[in-house]
Amino acid sequence: MRFELTKDFLTELKERINENNTAFVDQKVIHLHPADIAEIIDELDNVEAKFVFHQLDSELQGEVLMELEEEVREKFIKSFDAKQIADQLENLDSDDAADILGELPTERQLEVIAQMDDDDAADLVELLNYDESTAGGLMQTEYIQVNVDWPVKKCIVELRRQAEEVEKVYTIYVVDNYEKLLGVLSLKSLLFARPTTLIKDLYQDTNIISVTTNTDGEEVARLMDKYDLVSIPVVDLQRKLVGRITIDDIVDLIREEADKDFQMASGLSESVEANASIFRLSRARLPWLFIGMFGGILGAQVIGNFEIQIGQIPALAFFIPLVAAMGGNVGVQSSAVVVQSLANGTNQFSSILTRVKKEALLGLLNGLICGSVIFVVTWLLESPMLGLTVSLSLFTVIFFAAVLGTLIPLILDKYGIDPAVATGPFITTMNDVVGLFIYFSMGMLVFGL
Amino acid sequence: MRFELTKDFLTELKERINENNTAFVDQKVIHLHPADIAEIIDELDNVEAKFVFHQLDSELQGEVLMELEEEVREKFIKSFDAKQIADQLENLDSDDAADILGELPTERQLEVIAQMDDDDAADLVELLNYDESTAGGLMQTEYIQVNVDWPVKKCIVELRRQAEEVEKVYTIYVVDNYEKLLGVLSLKSLLFARPTTLIKDLYQDTNIISVTTNTDGEEVARLMDKYDLVSIPVVDLQRKLVGRITIDDIVDLIREEADKDFQMASGLSESVEANASIFRLSRARLPWLFIGMFGGILGAQVIGNFEIQIGQIPALAFFIPLVAAMGGNVGVQSSAVVVQSLANGTNQFSSILTRVKKEALLGLLNGLICGSVIFVVTWLLESPMLGLTVSLSLFTVIFFAAVLGTLIPLILDKYGIDPAVATGPFITTMNDVVGLFIYFSMGMLVFGL
Repeated sequence: MRFELTKDFLTELKERINENNTAFVDQKVIHLHPADIAEIIDELDNVEAKFVFHQLDSELQGEVLMELEEEVREKFIKSFDAKQIADQLENLDSDDAADILGELPTERQLEVIAQMDDDDAADLVELLNYDESTAGGLMQTEYIQVNVDWPVKKCIVELRRQAEEVEKVYTIYVVDNYEKLLGVLSLKSLLFARPTTLIKDLYQDTNIISVTTNTDGEEVARLMDKYDLVSIPVVDLQRKLVGRITIDDIVDLIREEADKDFQMASGLSESVEANASIFRLSRARLPWLFIGMFGGILGAQVIGNFEIQIGQIPALAFFIPLVAAMGGNVGVQSSAVVVQSLANGTNQFSSILTRVKKEALLGLLNGLICGSVIFVVTWLLESPMLGLTVSLSLFTVIFFAAVLGTLIPLILDKYGIDPAVATGPFITTMNDVVGLFIYFSMGMLVFGL
Repeated sequence: MRFELTKDFLTELKERINENNTAFVDQKVIHLHPADIAEIIDELDNVEAKFVFHQLDSELQGEVLMELEEEVREKFIKSFDAKQIADQLENLDSDDAADILGELPTERQLEVIAQMDDDDAADLVELLNYDESTAGGLMQTEYIQVNVDWPVKKCIVELRRQAEEVEKVYTIYVVDNYEKLLGVLSLKSLLFARPTTLIKDLYQDTNIISVTTNTDGEEVARLMDKYDLVSIPVVDLQRKLVGRITIDDIVDLIREEADKDFQMASGLSESVEANASIFRLSRARLPWLFIGMFGGILGAQVIGNFEIQIGQIPALAFFIPLVAAMGGNVGVQSSAVVVQSLANGTNQFSSILTRVKKEALLGLLNGLICGSVIFVVTWLLESPMLGLTVSLSLFTVIFFAAVLGTLIPLILDKYGIDPAVATGPFITTMNDVVGLFIYFSMGMLVFGL
């Protein structure tokens, strides 16, 4: 039976904790999967959380710690002393330990490191040097390596020794005497081999996908996805094996990237959790709101130039929001498609011209459809003259918005700027201004003002 | 060395193919990783693609086929006869084969199945019955299972037999005499065990995470992510083991879901690739554009009620786009945060009231900041009266947009509607209309019209 956290369970747990009842936690919590225990602790306050945490054995504590939500973990870690943190870190995989250590202030890092076993500390200090977003920052130093000259028998003995430290073994890495990565070996092939067979006659040395410590995290994700890998070896610039990255960390990375893209497209400039403080939330939202205001002020300037015409035909003002909004919507649609195909690396060899042509054609088609519909509606609601103005300008705006929405991310990408920032409010705002200018110019033309 | 597809390589390849030069493909292409070969074929036309494809051996053909982009594969498969397709399907993992078979029209499916080996065909037909988006639709029938009563020795013999069919072995599934799933066994533990040890003394039977065939794909992804699994066993309603799902398929699923969410937030109603036909692209975009137009027409009706006032003070019209755009932006920001935290299952137990309160507070803060800024700007550009109108209404609009942007996805979610559809144009449009009404009402109040 899979555990499912319910409100009832939480209520009962909190009551039992308040009664200082350890039996309930013992029976109902500590046998759960670490990820489930973490889910429970995420919902408790700090005192309750500690009550549960201290009933776990030390190995389980480490696993639960890594599964906690970041904010909960930070609060939790803060209430430990240096020795306690050091103990926890020694229970963790090196990449997780480095992440936690990296989140601490420098002085605190030094205190914790001083409390650790020298070997473990050395590994961690090394990992801390890597940029978090690179393969070096993602990798763990726990992996299984065997020498290419060994027989299977020695390999299994060695494996048994190493495997104690390595929680999940997917692939065995084969190295030469200088620890350079030569290839990989599956556990399966080892299982079926005779004890005296040499690794060199057994391992796979073609199409070995590895990354170097400075490979960008997103590139690691792309490679593991493309080649369907569950772990990828990390080598240094001399091709010496230094670590491995496992797919669970990459799944987290992919989710985070997707969340970030979604937030950017929605006008949030910093990645923030829903439970962050009001001021952090405000700071994350203000940049885009200011861009929007700036666009609105520009729009006001554009309309200001047509003050006399609006005084003559106030009905012109009625369709300002329609024209502005449609320009924005079309722009966001076009740019989203481009941004996504750039991010996924699809159609990488189709030229800018081909895409813009296609998008322009699409703009013409959608402009024609929307323009025709609005012509009829506006005629019926207002007048044929206004219908003509609105439909012609809507047609033009949709066309321009489609072209600009395609061009801007492509141009940004050409110059190495992340095109994801170009979608959302930025393109909306620009198309608003362009759209208004088109609309009023068209109005002057149609009404002969 | 990792292969990197360049424009030069493509140009040379196309030239060699035109010369009917098989040696180039032999030397430079067929030794590459299947994913790389697929990447190359994606960029070729159908004739060129076939030229390359026919030089691959049959196993490689199957692997390459699965790595092709969907449109390319469809075109490719269409040019095969039933026998050729049947041969290809037998080379593939059952989940991939079922996907390809499922994409064909029913008559063609029957033709292909008639050409297949009976056992393979039976597996496929069974898989085709499952809904694509469920665990049954995602699973493959290739996995390793051993009986709980076997000794390690028999297990390894059996494994060797089964392992020929199973490309990647991550976990061995332990079943009873009725094929019911009891637990899992790692290859590692098998490697270190004595030949006479019984599986029942070796396997892990606590915290076994499995799904049933009707579990939703997104739920499978959530579980594999939460419990850091590389494969998950699938059981039927009697707990009989029927398949497994591997992490590479889940990574694809996560990416697709993220893409879909991003597209929905950008106002694209169907998932479409950038290289789809103009008419499919147009169809995907029109629904949102129509919603936008509808909102614009409503907006026009609202403004229409203030025609006299605009005639008196045309400057009121200047700030229509600002007020409308800001309402939309704030609404999208608020809803994006809610949609994301709903999708990720974070803060599941904080009540609707708590969230709306927080979002309202945030709306007040951002409204105050933006309102103050715009007051000064509008005063300087136009007049203090207009400044007062714009700033007061902006403040109110931001507040309302924040609250509505939070409430709507929460309410939709309560009623089981995917809240992702609520972001983007829908909320923008609604806030436009509400914003305009607030703006002109405020204008009448301030100017005493």
